[in-house]
Amino acid sequence: MTELESRSRKSDKSLLITGINFATCCSGTKYKNRDDLLMVVLDSGSHICGCFTLSTMPSAPVIWSKKNIKKAINIKQKIILLINAGNANAFTGEEGLLACEEKASAIASIFKCNKKNIFFASTGVIGEKLPYNKIIQHLNYLKENLSSSGLRAASNAILTTDLKPKVYTNKFKINNELFTISGFAKGSGMIFPNMATMLAFIFTDFAIDRKTLSSFTNKAVSESFNRISVDGDTSTSDSVFVSTSNKKSLKITRDNRTAALNAFYEELKNAMVDLAKKIVMDGEGARKFIEITVKNARSIASAKEICFSIANSLLVKTAIAGEDANWGRLIMAIGKTRINLKTEKIKIYMQDFLLCKNGQGVQTVDDAKLSRALKKKKVDIVVDLAEGHKDFTAWTSDLTEDYIKINADYRS
Amino acid sequence: MTELESRSRKSDKSLLITGINFATCCSGTKYKNRDDLLMVVLDSGSHICGCFTLSTMPSAPVIWSKKNIKKAINIKQKIILLINAGNANAFTGEEGLLACEEKASAIASIFKCNKKNIFFASTGVIGEKLPYNKIIQHLNYLKENLSSSGLRAASNAILTTDLKPKVYTNKFKINNELFTISGFAKGSGMIFPNMATMLAFIFTDFAIDRKTLSSFTNKAVSESFNRISVDGDTSTSDSVFVSTSNKKSLKITRDNRTAALNAFYEELKNAMVDLAKKIVMDGEGARKFIEITVKNARSIASAKEICFSIANSLLVKTAIAGEDANWGRLIMAIGKTRINLKTEKIKIYMQDFLLCKNGQGVQTVDDAKLSRALKKKKVDIVVDLAEGHKDFTAWTSDLTEDYIKINADYRS
Repeated sequence: MTELESRSRKSDKSLLITGINFATCCSGTKYKNRDDLLMVVLDSGSHICGCFTLSTMPSAPVIWSKKNIKKAINIKQKIILLINAGNANAFTGEEGLLACEEKASAIASIFKCNKKNIFFASTGVIGEKLPYNKIIQHLNYLKENLSSSGLRAASNAILTTDLKPKVYTNKFKINNELFTISGFAKGSGMIFPNMATMLAFIFTDFAIDRKTLSSFTNKAVSESFNRISVDGDTSTSDSVFVSTSNKKSLKITRDNRTAALNAFYEELKNAMVDLAKKIVMDGEGARKFIEITVKNARSIASAKEICFSIANSLLVKTAIAGEDANWGRLIMAIGKTRINLKTEKIKIYMQDFLLCKNGQGVQTVDDAKLSRALKKKKVDIVVDLAEGHKDFTAWTSDLTEDYIKINADYRS
Repeated sequence: MTELESRSRKSDKSLLITGINFATCCSGTKYKNRDDLLMVVLDSGSHICGCFTLSTMPSAPVIWSKKNIKKAINIKQKIILLINAGNANAFTGEEGLLACEEKASAIASIFKCNKKNIFFASTGVIGEKLPYNKIIQHLNYLKENLSSSGLRAASNAILTTDLKPKVYTNKFKINNELFTISGFAKGSGMIFPNMATMLAFIFTDFAIDRKTLSSFTNKAVSESFNRISVDGDTSTSDSVFVSTSNKKSLKITRDNRTAALNAFYEELKNAMVDLAKKIVMDGEGARKFIEITVKNARSIASAKEICFSIANSLLVKTAIAGEDANWGRLIMAIGKTRINLKTEKIKIYMQDFLLCKNGQGVQTVDDAKLSRALKKKKVDIVVDLAEGHKDFTAWTSDLTEDYIKINADYRS
């Protein structure tokens, strides 16, 4: 075993969560010479929650999973997640739903479980029929190859145009008991709040009731995946699944319940924020990670609208790509929201340099220093509106020629 | 005189409008070796109307011109328009407004006219102080060089990142009388409805009352410039001015008034549509002209929202650049509007090829023929919602690597 393999094995071990197993294979539906089909099996007694795209054109797997997630699953049976990459099974009409139905029947018969315990996610080209028989042919193989240490392989099998897998893992203690939270995500184009061509899966052993886990999932998504944008495009397929094997129970008393749950929520949020940022960092063609904060707005809604007007502006994103402190384009992006603001109160900072105040540019900026600061991989933009006390932060990437190359060629 | 010069002179002659004169020069404020300052002088008795950006961060010249356009100008005096390229005089605080005040004082004294007869437009970098003294130094030169045949030179002096000047001219007959309408525009980035870094000037000799001309201007802008998008960005400086020298009166009777005015409105609209399309064709880095029509929507508003969701989608624009009939990205763009639609009713056409119906892709498309059709410079997208009877059309361009190159480097 080489040193690299040893390190990789070791880090795989740290991702282990009792009661959760993974298997991958090459399904033959799209890619050659790489795994593109992932099965995750949660032991009986597990919970699963989910959060899905708000697109009015959801894919068949989103329609399927959204329906099932609302139902009470059979807790005495296993839960099965099946994910494929390369074909989104979106806008495929009745046949798309039939594909889900057929896959579910096959899985239910193999695992002797109820269909409502089965969840799907698909990512890839929209509008192409999913050759689901090829997927069904591999189900037995996947079942026989389930392994608790397969998380890293799993994170690779769901990728499409992503350059890198996006994996998170952490051990955390609450009341001196040790828990694990791990997860992975994919997505690098069609990324805009409400989760675009983005799939994320988070797993833990922390025992928690389903209702609380569900509300935590929604809240954490709003503080992580719904704060990112690569290109302002929202996909038909976004799904975030949060699962717990419930294998490690904390003795929660009435006294420590709130504190313990809050501590778990922070861990869940950290996992999602980490994966969300990794998606942005792997934004198609991205070279810079941009954090935009709008401070002291009258409302969260207006802060958010301004944040995303900046994050989605091609002119802002190309300026950052060119390492140009062109704050005039920020003014343009703020102005196009048509939110009423007092221009003379606005302060704009890039990399902590105050660039404009009193309705005009600051003349004393050290251009050489600023220019050096903009060469960094992380660019911070702060807009202080001085109108109220609400803040919002969004994350995005710059826009480079490589984005065009990737997306002009993707399908062919 | 070369043949080219002769042709150019001839076409210049056709643009002549009695009572309207132009002069240009290099102001020294930004560019070297090219004209960047334009003066237009309308004889006394003229009317001017305008339509401006809805950005809440308007430039100083927009603030100035918007205020003046609402006032009754002094009809016995000349009207003066002064336009500079390279510096937008936007977000320049009190000094930006002072620049307008000082330029106006100088012009008023030279032309012996009221300041409210003076209008400004500036385009270029946002946030840099306008060295207005350099402009004032050239006012006498401009006055001495006014010429009715200067329209083509005028159309060049207002350009920034534009690759080509955008000129329109037409002679039209109403009730057997001959009129002229001419104009020019600039703009190729920050282009989104409500007119982004876009300036347009239309001139005619058709005599018309100011109130009707003003309502025609607004209506024609909504049917032309507000239907285009290059990058979804809206500028601080957009302005459309429509002027008439009122030199040619039509004997309008009660009987022919409506028909004559309607005929003039069509001419005005045609001029604006032509210039709007020329702006899109000259979109930064654009190689394709895309016309998007959403048909049979429940309302104009929903048709428009879907049109622009498609027009502004980076994934759609890059797919067209790649000559890829990736209609799945159109579905994505429709879905992200969150407008409630029956997916099974939607039909999508590209270059007249029906690509999807009944909630799924059409299998019988001749891919070779479609592929050839997509190599054309003009790409037509039609989305038939089959929900109602309202249509909307928008125009945009594809997104290529050159857009990034132009915008990452613009300021430096």
